[in-house]
This record gives sequence, C-alpha cells and structure tokens, in this order.
Amino acid sequence: MSTGRVTLPIENGIDDKVLRVASLWGADAVRNSDGTSLPPIAKELDAKVYETYFVGRGDNEWAHAHPADRPQFFLMSERKPALNSGPLEIRVMEGYLDLQVEPATEADREKFWQVIDRTTGETLPASAWSLAGTGADALVTVSAPEEGHVYTVDFLAWQNWDPVQMYNYITNHWENEPDRVREQPYDIRHPETWEYVKAGMDSWLESHPEVDVVRFTTFFYQFTLLFNDRQKEKMVEWFGYLGSVSEAALRDFEAKYGYALTPEDFVDEGYYNSAFRVPRKQFLDWIDSLGDFVTERARVLVEKTHAAGKEAMMFLGDHWIGTEPYCDKFASIGLDAVVGSVGSATTCRMISDIPGVKYHEGRFLPYFFPDVFFDGADPVPELNLRWSQARRAIVRSPLDRMGYGGYLSLPLKFPKFIERVGEITEEFRSLHEVSGGARPANASVKVAVLNAWGKRRSWMASMVAHAKPYMQTYAYEGVLEALAGLPFDVQFINFDDVLNGALEQVDVVINAGGAGTAFSGGSYWARPEIAAALRNFVAKGGGLIGIGEPSAVDVPGSGAYFQLSDVYGVDRERGFSLSTDRYVDVVESHFILEGLDDGPSRGRGLEEINALEVEPQPLPGRDQALVDVGPGVGFVVPVCRDTEVLQFIDGSVDLAARDFGNGRVVYLAGLPYNDINSRILFRAIYWAGHAEDRVAENYLSADPRLEVAYYPEARKLFVYNNCAQNVESSLSGEHYMNVKVNASDSVWIDV
Amino acid sequence: MSTGRVTLPIENGIDDKVLRVASLWGADAVRNSDGTSLPPIAKELDAKVYETYFVGRGDNEWAHAHPADRPQFFLMSERKPALNSGPLEIRVMEGYLDLQVEPATEADREKFWQVIDRTTGETLPASAWSLAGTGADALVTVSAPEEGHVYTVDFLAWQNWDPVQMYNYITNHWENEPDRVREQPYDIRHPETWEYVKAGMDSWLESHPEVDVVRFTTFFYQFTLLFNDRQKEKMVEWFGYLGSVSEAALRDFEAKYGYALTPEDFVDEGYYNSAFRVPRKQFLDWIDSLGDFVTERARVLVEKTHAAGKEAMMFLGDHWIGTEPYCDKFASIGLDAVVGSVGSATTCRMISDIPGVKYHEGRFLPYFFPDVFFDGADPVPELNLRWSQARRAIVRSPLDRMGYGGYLSLPLKFPKFIERVGEITEEFRSLHEVSGGARPANASVKVAVLNAWGKRRSWMASMVAHAKPYMQTYAYEGVLEALAGLPFDVQFINFDDVLNGALEQVDVVINAGGAGTAFSGGSYWARPEIAAALRNFVAKGGGLIGIGEPSAVDVPGSGAYFQLSDVYGVDRERGFSLSTDRYVDVVESHFILEGLDDGPSRGRGLEEINALEVEPQPLPGRDQALVDVGPGVGFVVPVCRDTEVLQFIDGSVDLAARDFGNGRVVYLAGLPYNDINSRILFRAIYWAGHAEDRVAENYLSADPRLEVAYYPEARKLFVYNNCAQNVESSLSGEHYMNVKVNASDSVWIDV
Repeated sequence: MSTGRVTLPIENGIDDKVLRVASLWGADAVRNSDGTSLPPIAKELDAKVYETYFVGRGDNEWAHAHPADRPQFFLMSERKPALNSGPLEIRVMEGYLDLQVEPATEADREKFWQVIDRTTGETLPASAWSLAGTGADALVTVSAPEEGHVYTVDFLAWQNWDPVQMYNYITNHWENEPDRVREQPYDIRHPETWEYVKAGMDSWLESHPEVDVVRFTTFFYQFTLLFNDRQKEKMVEWFGYLGSVSEAALRDFEAKYGYALTPEDFVDEGYYNSAFRVPRKQFLDWIDSLGDFVTERARVLVEKTHAAGKEAMMFLGDHWIGTEPYCDKFASIGLDAVVGSVGSATTCRMISDIPGVKYHEGRFLPYFFPDVFFDGADPVPELNLRWSQARRAIVRSPLDRMGYGGYLSLPLKFPKFIERVGEITEEFRSLHEVSGGARPANASVKVAVLNAWGKRRSWMASMVAHAKPYMQTYAYEGVLEALAGLPFDVQFINFDDVLNGALEQVDVVINAGGAGTAFSGGSYWARPEIAAALRNFVAKGGGLIGIGEPSAVDVPGSGAYFQLSDVYGVDRERGFSLSTDRYVDVVESHFILEGLDDGPSRGRGLEEINALEVEPQPLPGRDQALVDVGPGVGFVVPVCRDTEVLQFIDGSVDLAARDFGNGRVVYLAGLPYNDINSRILFRAIYWAGHAEDRVAENYLSADPRLEVAYYPEARKLFVYNNCAQNVESSLSGEHYMNVKVNASDSVWIDV
Repeated sequence: MSTGRVTLPIENGIDDKVLRVASLWGADAVRNSDGTSLPPIAKELDAKVYETYFVGRGDNEWAHAHPADRPQFFLMSERKPALNSGPLEIRVMEGYLDLQVEPATEADREKFWQVIDRTTGETLPASAWSLAGTGADALVTVSAPEEGHVYTVDFLAWQNWDPVQMYNYITNHWENEPDRVREQPYDIRHPETWEYVKAGMDSWLESHPEVDVVRFTTFFYQFTLLFNDRQKEKMVEWFGYLGSVSEAALRDFEAKYGYALTPEDFVDEGYYNSAFRVPRKQFLDWIDSLGDFVTERARVLVEKTHAAGKEAMMFLGDHWIGTEPYCDKFASIGLDAVVGSVGSATTCRMISDIPGVKYHEGRFLPYFFPDVFFDGADPVPELNLRWSQARRAIVRSPLDRMGYGGYLSLPLKFPKFIERVGEITEEFRSLHEVSGGARPANASVKVAVLNAWGKRRSWMASMVAHAKPYMQTYAYEGVLEALAGLPFDVQFINFDDVLNGALEQVDVVINAGGAGTAFSGGSYWARPEIAAALRNFVAKGGGLIGIGEPSAVDVPGSGAYFQLSDVYGVDRERGFSLSTDRYVDVVESHFILEGLDDGPSRGRGLEEINALEVEPQPLPGRDQALVDVGPGVGFVVPVCRDTEVLQFIDGSVDLAARDFGNGRVVYLAGLPYNDINSRILFRAIYWAGHAEDRVAENYLSADPRLEVAYYPEARKLFVYNNCAQNVESSLSGEHYMNVKVNASDSVWIDV
C-alpha cells in the first residue's frame, strides 16, 4: 500500500482513530478542523501541518479602531419610478442589510454617488438631487423627476461585515452565542492597516512553529456576496469585484490610468460587471490595476512565510479576488501551492491547471459536515459520485494532492466510507505512480474555447457561484465539464487573441453561450473583423462548434441574428422571417452520433451530479432524444440547404453539422454534462477536426460510461467507470479488447 | 323555420338536391363552385347570384403581348460568403423558381439592384460589382470582396406566374392537363393594361346579366407567395407587399413623396418588411402610396359594377394587398360587401368588424373539398368545431351572412352533415332574429390592444399566413382569438395613438408579442416618452396586461430588458443578473384564477381547433399547470418584491400580477387559445380594470366551456357550448340559474 499525497482534517479526542485513518488513507499532511485547534497527536504523525490564515478579518479591535480602513463597494438602489412630477424620494438602503452595508454619506456625492434616469440612461447633474440622512435612513431626493421615468442611485458604501463570516454567522445562528462577534473587515489599501497586517503576520509566524504550510484564506478582497434585509442571500458572484473598492483605491487608479472611474462603471446598470457581461475597458482596467496591487502585496506576505521556513498555500475562494491565477503576474506572488474545493471536473481543472505554483491540492467532497453524515445516512454513493466526477479531470491534469475538510469524527461512524476513501486515495496515488508520472496521451486535435474572457478565466466560463448549478447555465457549464475530462489540449482564447493569430494554433474552436453574454461574445460579433476571422478560419479547413446562441448579436442590416448563420447553417428565428418556409430533413446517421444511438446508456448515469436546485425537467420529446440540450434556445432553424440536422425537437434544431469551405461546423443548442453528451462533444471535435479516422488513436470505449486514458510510455491503459453500475465494454485502439469495470471503479491494463 | 343570410355553392346535374338543400339551409344566394359555371337551376331559386371576378390575371393573350406590364418584386439572393479575396460570384436565382421569377436584368442596376456586405451592412458602389447573363443565369460578380464577409444581391424581378393559380396548378398537377395554362399576371399600374381591364370589366358586366353580386378576387396585388426551385412554398405572407412593385409604381412614389425607395427598402435584410418587423417610414409610405392608388382604381371598377345594377363584393384574400380595410380610405371604394374565409374567431372578426361596407359574409369551413369529404369520413365533428370557433366571434360582432365553398355534390353523401348545417344556419339566423338585431351587452371595461400597427391591422396581429398556426405565434394569436369572443369593446392602437391621448379612452391596455417585433413594439420601447406614457397610464389607475416579451428592447444604461420591468414586476433574465438572487413565492389564490383551479375543464376542450402543423407539446409541468402559456419565454423572473406570481414553472414566471401606483398590471408568458385561457384573460381584464365586482355584470357561466351573451333589451341570454361534451353549469348575473347545453349547441333563455 502506498502513502502520501493526502491531507487529513484532524481533531482532539480521537487520537487512536486519527492514527488508524491516517495510516489507511496514507495521509502525509494534517489540517485543523474548522474553528478548532490542531490536536497534539499531529506531532506524532509523520505529516506536514497546515493551518488557515485570514489576512483582512478576525481582529475586530483593530477594525473598530480604524473605521476609515473598511473596504467599500458601489451599490445601486432599487429602481424607483416617478409616479408624478413631484419630488421623488429614494431610500438607497431599501433591500440591503444595514449590518453589512452602510452608505458612505460623508463621501463627495458628486464623485461617489450617481443618480441615473434609467428610462433615458442619462446621469442627472448633482444639482438635480439632494442627499439627506445617514445609514439606513440615507435618502436621495430627485427634486423634479420626469413623470413616468425610472430612477436609481449608485452609491458608495462601507462594508461592515465580512461576507463569509456573515454567512456562517447567519446560517449557524451565532446571534445566540454571546462570544461570537460579527467580524468587520479591513482593507490593506490603507497604510496603517497594511503595516498592522504585516506585523501581525510576523508575530503569527513566530508563534506557530508547528505549522509547515500557511493556508491563506485568501488574501485581501472577498468575491461579491451580499445579503438582503431579511438576511437572505441577495447577490453572489464568485468572480465579482464589487468588494474590492475604496476611495483610496479609486484615487490610486486615477493616478495610474489617467481617468477616474465612476460609480456606474462598477454598478453597470445593476449588472455589476457580472462575468456574463462583455467586459468593458473600465472594468478590465480595474481588474488589472487591482491585480497589480494584490500581487505585489501578497508577495510580501508570501516572502515572510518563506522567511519563517514555511510554505505558502493559497485557497482559491473567499478573498481570492485580484489574484486572477491565470494571469501572467500570478506566478510572481511566489506561492508554493494552491488549494481549492473540487465541486466538479471543471473546478478541479480550474485548480490543477493553474501555472506558476509547485503543487495543487483539491479539497474533495463530501465535506465532513452533519448534512451528509447523520444517523442513518449512507455517504458512500455521494463519495463515489464526487470521486467519479473529479477523477475525469485528475486523469487529464493530475492534482498533486487531495484532501478532505470538516470534522473527522463524523465519517468515523461510517466504516464503509472510511474504507472507500482508503481505496480512493490509493487509486489517486496510482495515477501518479503506475503512470510513471506521465500524463496520458492527448488527442491530435487541438481545441480552443473562445469567449470574451479567454485565458484569464480558464475553466471559469458560464459560472456564477463556485460549482453551483443554475438552470440558465448548466447547459453551457456542461461543455467545460465534458472537456475537463476529455483528452484534448484545450486553450482558452479571447477575441483579441483571434485577431492576433491564435486560431493558427488550433484545429477546432468552441464558442458556447447565450446571446449577448461574454461567453458567446456578444458585441464582439458586431465587429466585422471578428466574424471574418472565424469565417476564414473555417473556410481554410478549421473546425467550429457553436453551442447555444453562438455569434448572436443585433447588427443592423445584417439580416441574421447568429452573425455566422451562413457558417453554422442555422439561425435563431425571432419572428422576422416566419414568412420564409424552413425545411428540415433530419439526417439518419452521422459520425458524431455513431455508436450512441442504440447504446445501453441514454446519458442519465450521472444524473445526480447534475441535479439542480430547480430540477430541470426534460423538455418534451427530449426523453426520447439522444442529445439532452437542456432548456435549449428555441426556434433555431436551418438557413442553409446543406445543413445536416441531426436532432430537431419542438420546432427547433438541437444538433446540426455541415461543411463550410474546407472546414466543418457543428451546432448544438446546449450541452449539459452527461456521459452521452460528453462523448458527442468528443466525436464532434474529431469530426470538425477532419480526424474521424483517428478517433481511437488513444483507445476508445464503446460504452461512453467508461473512459480510457492511454499512457504510451508506460504502455498502460487506465479505464474508469463514471457511473454507479458495473459496465462491460469493448475498447478499440491499437489493440481491440473487452473490459469489465465495476461501478465507480477503475482498472489498469497493460498494452 | 327561417330563411336567408346563407350562400350556397351549386353545380350542375344535382338540381333536385340543390333545391332540397337550399330549402333546408334557407339559402338566399348561390355561387358557382370553383372553376365551374352556374347551373340553370340558379334562376329557379329565389336567390341572388354571385360570381367571382379576377382583375389582374386570366387573360394570357393580353399578358404575353404586354410583358412590360407584368408586376414585379424585389428579391434577395442567398447569402454568399467570400471564402477568399478572389471575385465572388452570386447566382441571384439560386433557390427561386424560374417559372415564377425572372430577374429584371435590363433594369437600371444602379437603381434597381443593390449589392450589400451583410457583415458590415454597407451597400457596395455599383463600380464594385458587375451583372451578366439573364434569367436563371443572371450572375452578379463582386470583383474584390472582403475575405470572410457575406454578400447578398437585392434585385428587381418580373412576376411570370400568378401565385394563387400557381398554387392550384402545382398542387393539382395541372402540368399533366394540356388545356391548363400558367396564368401570367398583369399590373393595372400600366395605362394600356388599365384601359384594357376597364374595358374587359364593361364587357363582362354586360355579358353576365344573371349575376347580382360581382365577387372581386380581389383587386390588383397578390399577397406575398413565392415558390422555390423544387416547387415548394418558399415564402408566404398574407400581409406581404412584395408583389406590389413595378418600376412605374416606384417612379410614381418618388414623384409624390420626394424620395426614391431602394431595393433594400423592400428587401429589408431578407425579412421583406414582415408584419413582425417594426414598420419603417419607407414601408409605411409605400403602403399609403399603394393604398391611394388601389383605392382610386378599385373605386372605378366598383362604380362600373354599380352602374350595371350589380353589387360589388370584395374577397379578403388573394389580391387584397393595398386595400387595408381598416384604413379610413377603404370606405371610399364604395364596396357593398366583403367576404372572407372564416378560419377562427379572429379571422371572423377581421371580416365582420370592417367599417364602410353594407354587409359582411363569412365563408365557413370545412370547405367542400375531397380532403374532408372522402368515403368513410365523418365531417360533422369538424363542422361543429369550426362553428363553435366562429360562433364566439359572430355573437359579439355578427356577420351578416354565412356561406360555404367548394362542391356541393361532396357533402351530399353525408346526410348528417347536411342536416347539421341546416341547424347551424338556423342558429346563425337566430342570433339576428331572437336578439331583435341588437348586439349583446359589452363589458363596462374598455380594452385596447397596443402594437406598432394599431387600427390598420385590427384583428391581424401575430399572423403570418391566413389562420395558419405557427409554433412561434400561436401563444400570441390566442390573445386575439380569446378577445374575438369576449364581451369587450376592443380598440387597436399604435404608439403614435398613445402619444395622441388614446389611453384616455381605455381602461386596460394589452401588449403582446415577442421581443423586437412590431407586436410587442420593439424599438418603440426605447423611446422614453412611450415608456413614460404607459407608466403614467398605470400609475393613474389604468390596467396593463403584458404577454410574452412586452416592452422588451435593448436600451443602453437602462438595466432592464422589459423597459417596463418596474411596472410588470418581472423581467427576462438574459444571464447578466444571474448573480442576483430571485425569490419566488407563488400566490395561493387570486381573483384572476378564481373558479378555474378546480373546475372540470383543464383547458383542453378545444384542443383540435388549435392543432398546429407542428403539434405543440405541453411543456414540462404544464400539463399540471392551469395556464398553458405555449412555448413560453423562458427565464422570466420577478424583479419587484410585491410581484404576485401565480404560476412559476421551469424557473420562469408564467403568470404574475401586481399593483403599480393606482393601477394594476398582469404578466402572462403566453396565451394560446383555449377555454381556460380565454377565461383567464377575461378575469385578468376585469381585475386590471379594478372591476372585479362587475365580473358578472352580463352573466357569467361557472364553467368556462360555456359562454353567455346577454341581450338586455330583449331580456334574453344566448348560452353556447364551445366544446364537444354536454356541459351543465351555473350562471351568475342579475339572476342565478343552472343551465345544461349539449355539445357544440346553444340555448336561448329568457331573463
């Protein structure tokens, strides 16, 4: 039995068991359980010791003594219609929680507040409105509004409560625990606080000799997380920069970039520069500006950590804003490692692909919390599902380490769980050891995912909160979830890259997203040079796969909604050309669907993994359909005679393919992750890349519930079963063979 | 038994039966069956004689002798991408049928042809392209296209075949009948043809003394109907002006309006000014210009008809383009009557509400054609369905006459059908006679339907072909279908009317349509004065019902997609605000749904009537849902705290209501016609009009499958059963009673 590569959460009072589990799992590192200190047994284990470290919260004495050093954000009031021409009063705090948000009524209102007529989009002059009151009573009065117009107030506000601590506080009803305080954050942008944070770090390092690895959670700025006045979540965006603002930072920005940002540059009509918005220059400049600052300051803390003889590990969560791990400067922080929660194959790749660190660690699910580990529960199926899900990514881009979080005492009541984790840790290590440290062979077809974010947001497309499924996004997230476990070199490129020759490096481009979003590309498609570049790429032999509403944008005079409708051979019918008859002839068979249309699985094997908060219902007819496209786009029609429609349901094209010039094009109305859909994407990429004859170049299972990783140097195959049933299947490749893999299990085969 | 108000199609060789049926149905008018002459028996009947008359087709000798007098149209080539920078050849006739379309290659190409780069929307200078070849070989060559751009050619073409004759010819394979010719149309815009048409009319009138009523089919310009090169329908629009063009007409237009129309003014990006497009000034000017011409010329023919002692009846179909029966000048034609095919309640109202004629006649379904009357068929259920459908409209706005078309010999084989028509004609007459000629009482709530067309297209909203159901439109057509049989005064208003005070006359405004279309209003909602006018209307107490994507348009800076999202309390989530948490609390009960949520009918009674070519499947959960919203809009979310959501399925609001200022607002994601939905609209109007306490002011059935018309002067109720089952229900109103009405039947009740 091998050991290593595993981090164990430990706690007091169960020393015997800790020793036994550490041995069974081969743990070589331990961490304290949430909110507890490390038990003395830690020292007896031959293991590294991790401890979490918070930079910008946790010292309320300092925080309360320095209220001007709180971080800030720009928020928008509710939309208020002027029902008559009399003065219009807008109570800006309506809907916000005053424990979290405090309007910066003392700030220069001409600079940090902005009143906008949303019916015209125009900003009102400061003379047209007044501000009175403070806190929850802050009131803006528009003296003479246009009757029937709608107004909002963008306002600067103070952050009075750290959002993650707030989440724990509210969820666990800490208001009933007198010794719990509401932690007020502080912003290292302010010199005094920065000096204080540095000194605090020094003394902590000195007083924690037992710690080998400082696990920063994280650095300085929390992703966007707001609560409403009923203490329910009001806004959450894992990529949100809302909490990164302060008057000082805005001044620094203006000095550096030569222009001032306005409140509306952050509020963005109330969309707050969501990752789904095509990013504007102002926001990109802000990200860059903040990134420079965060990188430089984080490096200081990391250097202190190293000077104390410890490793620095960053948690990809909480206060990760500004680190942008896929930007070049990230490496200059000097971190030893990143760790993140593995909620799916995509989130696993999001961690494991980060360049510039020595190792990557995944914190696996289920978390050892009572919601899963209660009397009578069986946590093993979830364990297997989560492992199957993450394994697809780990095979392609191995995490260096894995671990679990929470309280070890909980799973100890479930011996089968403990045992199964032991098997999983063994399997995890085998991917490093049996393979001889090599990665499996990738396809000869190179893939690029094209969206407005490109490399900067690798493996992050179409995500709102971290791995939380949304009805409107799961059919796009499925694209990355499939890719995360498929044997392709995947690049993430943006539209500037397209103009700078990036397409020359790839065989197949994937563009997936809803109309107008950063992920389909929105307004970029109104730029003739972008549409032309993609059209030329395909005409010259490239492959293009469009998913959802690719290239959709209104361009006056274009006569199309998908600006590449002549390439895709389909367009979305918005009612303007209903007069034109559309003829659909569904093609009987196609390489893309070969072997799938009568297989044993209908793509439902991993259903639970994709369960949404609002359970998606199969659309009519889609139970019978091969490709589950999710909620679909609706009214996608063929517009070229040679469009080969492969699935057409409810008057809308779900899947189509065609040649264009020397290239090939595939359209999909959506691609939620399941084993069938993943295989369809795999085959579509090979087809679009004119590589049908190479589809089994790295071995291929007939049954899509099995996947195969081929290690040519070791002459080995790793065959893994993604579903909860035993599966027998043939494998084709250099040799042809049959294989049987038990539910959720894997086998190594010599070839 | 009463007689009159009924037109009978008769034919030779069945004199006895004609007499019997004429007597049974109480016919007082006869018409020749399609393509046959009137049998001598016509004279023995005490009946008026109708005969069809075609103005602009049917004389091929004249047509072939005057090729320059053919009507023309502007068409667009297929979209051609430039795959390289070499010359790009565009064969303009690709996809068109050369028997119908002949490119006007001899025309001034700088004026009547237009080459457009659809990637930029720019028109190429004439020097950038050349034209060679004629007919099917006409070829445009763009000498140096931008690589990767897409090009189209707008071109003037001759019409060589009358589309309706063409349809009959192709459908009936007349190519195998040597004596059938392809009828070439001619355009009375040309003086010589106009003189010839007038003279032809004179001599026809003189030679047809037996004719009492000249049934014009119709005047001069055919609605858009094109066939592709496989002789399948390529484009159909019942409102399409494409066939109304000629060089002469364009010259006349320029002289009158002071500017020249371009090919693109007609081609409109390939959307050809579909009724779903928000109409542009150029197109409205063309409609007006053509309307002036058609009205003036039609009047000449009508005057000749009158001078010959005959009545003039216009068929609302075929060459009806340019008559615009809801425009003021229509009356000046001097017609005695209009007749049209009754395909639904809406199309019935479209005929019966036309002002300025002495009487209105409906041609009912089923048509006496072999597709319905074949051996073993039972045509009675369809007869009942069609009658139930039309009756809803007839009750509210009575047609003066009804009739059938086709070959009488066919239904004669179905005695139950003949008998049932006799009952229907009797019931039809009773609506005129028992009521004493009065209309039933209307609701005290006044309704306006708001779209970009307004009055000009009364009862014509969201229609593509005449009463042909489309997947994408049936959930909007259902709004008019419901209204057509509900007891409301309905006005059709446009956005100019809104600015001119039209809202002062109404209690409740309905705005129904897809985003960007003329029916929701599209770009009109980007005009602050429009949004403000509606907001003020509601704030001051008005009612507003939005269906589908009301007020949806992109307005930079607005932060909303539905520009009245703050009024409706809902907006469509396009992905930009997924970060914002939405809370939905479905309201348990509401006036709008009262009495419907546990009734015996789930709105499926009239299913067959709404059968689509592509059968709509109930969306998931919607089988259980009370309101069938059709394909829905998707991702409609509540955006105001006080939005009362009444139905929420698949993450989207189907039905919501709220107060706004002193007014009330209802949102529906769609409203296909069925008895439940019709009742929901009825109740929504009363609710939005603050008139809940008056909902039974004209008697109301508990079961929505029954409807009631109340004739206060006659002190009578007409209670009719819209479904194919016997129904017992209570009626509330001034008195309370129970009633039982047999399937498809009706009863008169004294009160």
